Amino acid sequence: MRWGYDDGMDLAARLIELLGATRVHTHPIDRLIYAKDSGVSSGDPAIVVLPETTEEVAAIVRMAAGADMPIVARGAGTGLAGGAVPASGSVLVVLTRMNAIYDVDEIGRTAWVGPGVINLDLSDALVDQDLHFAPDPSSQQSSTIGGNVGTNAGGPHCLAEGSTIAHVLGVEIVTVDGDIMVLGGAAPDPPGYDLRGLIVGSEGTLGIVTRVLVRLTENPPDVVTMLISFDGIGDAARTVSDIIGSGLVPAALEMMDGPMIEAVENFVHAGLPVGAGAVLLAEVVGHPAGIAAEADLIREIAVANAATDIRTATDEDERALLWKGRKSAFGAVAQAAPDYYLNDTVVPRTRFVEVLDEICAIADRYDLRLLNVFHAGDGNFHPLISFDASEQGMSEKVVAASHEMVHAAIAAGGTLSGEHGIGIEKRDLMSRVFSVDDLDAQARVREAFDPEGLLNPGKILPEGSRCFDRPAT
Amino acid sequence: MRWGYDDGMDLAARLIELLGATRVHTHPIDRLIYAKDSGVSSGDPAIVVLPETTEEVAAIVRMAAGADMPIVARGAGTGLAGGAVPASGSVLVVLTRMNAIYDVDEIGRTAWVGPGVINLDLSDALVDQDLHFAPDPSSQQSSTIGGNVGTNAGGPHCLAEGSTIAHVLGVEIVTVDGDIMVLGGAAPDPPGYDLRGLIVGSEGTLGIVTRVLVRLTENPPDVVTMLISFDGIGDAARTVSDIIGSGLVPAALEMMDGPMIEAVENFVHAGLPVGAGAVLLAEVVGHPAGIAAEADLIREIAVANAATDIRTATDEDERALLWKGRKSAFGAVAQAAPDYYLNDTVVPRTRFVEVLDEICAIADRYDLRLLNVFHAGDGNFHPLISFDASEQGMSEKVVAASHEMVHAAIAAGGTLSGEHGIGIEKRDLMSRVFSVDDLDAQARVREAFDPEGLLNPGKILPEGSRCFDRPAT
Repeated sequence: MRWGYDDGMDLAARLIELLGATRVHTHPIDRLIYAKDSGVSSGDPAIVVLPETTEEVAAIVRMAAGADMPIVARGAGTGLAGGAVPASGSVLVVLTRMNAIYDVDEIGRTAWVGPGVINLDLSDALVDQDLHFAPDPSSQQSSTIGGNVGTNAGGPHCLAEGSTIAHVLGVEIVTVDGDIMVLGGAAPDPPGYDLRGLIVGSEGTLGIVTRVLVRLTENPPDVVTMLISFDGIGDAARTVSDIIGSGLVPAALEMMDGPMIEAVENFVHAGLPVGAGAVLLAEVVGHPAGIAAEADLIREIAVANAATDIRTATDEDERALLWKGRKSAFGAVAQAAPDYYLNDTVVPRTRFVEVLDEICAIADRYDLRLLNVFHAGDGNFHPLISFDASEQGMSEKVVAASHEMVHAAIAAGGTLSGEHGIGIEKRDLMSRVFSVDDLDAQARVREAFDPEGLLNPGKILPEGSRCFDRPAT
Repeated sequence: MRWGYDDGMDLAARLIELLGATRVHTHPIDRLIYAKDSGVSSGDPAIVVLPETTEEVAAIVRMAAGADMPIVARGAGTGLAGGAVPASGSVLVVLTRMNAIYDVDEIGRTAWVGPGVINLDLSDALVDQDLHFAPDPSSQQSSTIGGNVGTNAGGPHCLAEGSTIAHVLGVEIVTVDGDIMVLGGAAPDPPGYDLRGLIVGSEGTLGIVTRVLVRLTENPPDVVTMLISFDGIGDAARTVSDIIGSGLVPAALEMMDGPMIEAVENFVHAGLPVGAGAVLLAEVVGHPAGIAAEADLIREIAVANAATDIRTATDEDERALLWKGRKSAFGAVAQAAPDYYLNDTVVPRTRFVEVLDEICAIADRYDLRLLNVFHAGDGNFHPLISFDASEQGMSEKVVAASHEMVHAAIAAGGTLSGEHGIGIEKRDLMSRVFSVDDLDAQARVREAFDPEGLLNPGKILPEGSRCFDRPAT
């Protein structure tokens, strides 16, 4: 059922009736706070609301849809692709207050959590049970589980454990009709179509996720963390290929290039080898005897590929310091220049060095400062451009260079996104990897959930994705 | 575009023009051969066709849809839930001839395969590369990859490795319009909606899978396989709980009850402990030092739960024999009576013994012979009823008892299917686990792919799943 409203202000009044004045914002300053995520796009919502329950979300959606206003879901706003940037004139549903952890099942290793639970808070809450939530995006100190679900977030430990989709067993969503629906569940293969899988990575375009049934992972009995230095990135890349080629899947296999090593070391003082061409951070987890053998194999492969130094963390403090270096990479860069643009593409591991050379050449051509950090184990590039957005024409130059980098990855048989989502930033690049029929199939599925296109419009799919939107051929 | 046909025979003539007479069958005997899968339902197709290429499948679908005839995809027909049973008057597309293995990428560990490739043939073809396809349903000697995709098949080694969905990176499908579309791909998180995930488990209702991009798994460097005997099923179940509770996820953790042990031993002579109440088949894989420690832990837990005997395979022959015992379970049962009905439900591991007691009581009440084999590690029950279908009223009694067993699993917080799919057998039970809104969401997605309901009609979703099919409330 649709409700009639005269205008946005009428709706705001009704939302205040529902939520109280402290949880409904329409003032320009308040709207500005929520205008951006951590990327470069922005938008101006008509109304910002902060629900605390699923029922409130359902009521908000019914009211907003009744007024034909777009509805956009947002977590902590750490996204980089614009997925949570509000459409103009939208109702922005900020889910950070829905941050309870319910029903922890220690035996079944699951928990229901609100979408507003911060990723790291979930693992911290489970320390006594010796469990954690495996996906560990670099934003994990601030990003929410709901946002991780929306983008199918990855992280260093997703090499062995898989990205968010492998750790979300079920979701509760509010549909555009205001219905509350649970998709998936704790069984290994829930019956029917896998609509849970469809929701993960859908960036709030199919429904608003109001609860998540997460799979929890046992903390490993033991861990070995190594920092391996190389003169050049080629040696490091060959080491990665040989490790994976040996049949070993380390828990994490991360790479930083020379400029990034320097920036990070200046920031965290973790004892990183300033002057090295590349470092690998390799981690193996499991039973002590098994991982000792695995760590030896990694060292052997690294030495065969001209590693110049191998440092093994001797205690938990040193391990934490090495990881702090990797996880602070983006913060470190912010010291050198006020802004950065972080790209996210994937290439086949066999084309790694070649595509990296091209990416560096693109940055040189645009005269941009480039630093690199990689989830090297699965070929996920994160070229990072450090810049000052107040310089005339700079932002446009950065975006243009980034698009060229994406094209280089696609041309090498890679794809346009690894773990950050499509959002606004990469929407118009979708037709580079999908055919007209592919995009139409995606648009039809979206339409099945949201016939009038009110949920996070303008994200993921380029305009004209539905075949009937295009001139007849 | 739709083509006009006068009747099915006109279509048959055109199909013969396309495929030749040897690959188009309309004779009653030929149709009877394809009337059933390995379950209890049957149907009579109008025409059976055996395409050899994707383009042939696309042409068949265009012709059949043009004649408004239902289109049903079938692999080897080993399914147990009726997913590949032809709708009456349908065109049955048998995909067994599309059995090529293309583009094996040893470094990226992927291959494209035809839907007709037999599961075990794929792993056998990769022996020299030391790779295999991880899902290993008991039917793996005869079931096809396409059928595995259709049902999201599991198997003993899916406890650690995940079911088919975790091993299918992409699919090529022919849509009901006859378009050819590739969904997913080799990247860790392909951009856009996860339509690949939607296709896996969809039993041919959203499109016909004509090629599959499979993930290949490195053969483990070493393996320890143990057969553990117990006096009672409760001891075995507690051992399973304690093993999983210890943080260890064995490669496989299978259970058989006393009647099943006896049937299997009479059949394969693997030295199984006839007279024992239950056996566990436990396997750990990995580097030798690590798995020795893991095997010790399993033995320790088993002894603490009153294991009466622990036998460890000393060589590959003995390992193969133990697995032959497990994998021949269904064949073994066929020696005792001409027919069997194999059920497939999932319960939380904590309710295992309780639900098993109920299932045994149901079989007693109906006076049916019950044998049990379980994927115990993930709570997947396979109660098997051995019977003679020629006895008056027997089939009805078996189905009624099986439905009661499903209800018992659901009542204990489990669900109605683990790995065999929904098909016809469990279609009408879907409303036991899904709400009206849930079923409507599934039906809308199906409609987005197949607006006129021509693809495998009558499967998965009960009639009236679309809300507008129901009287207004």
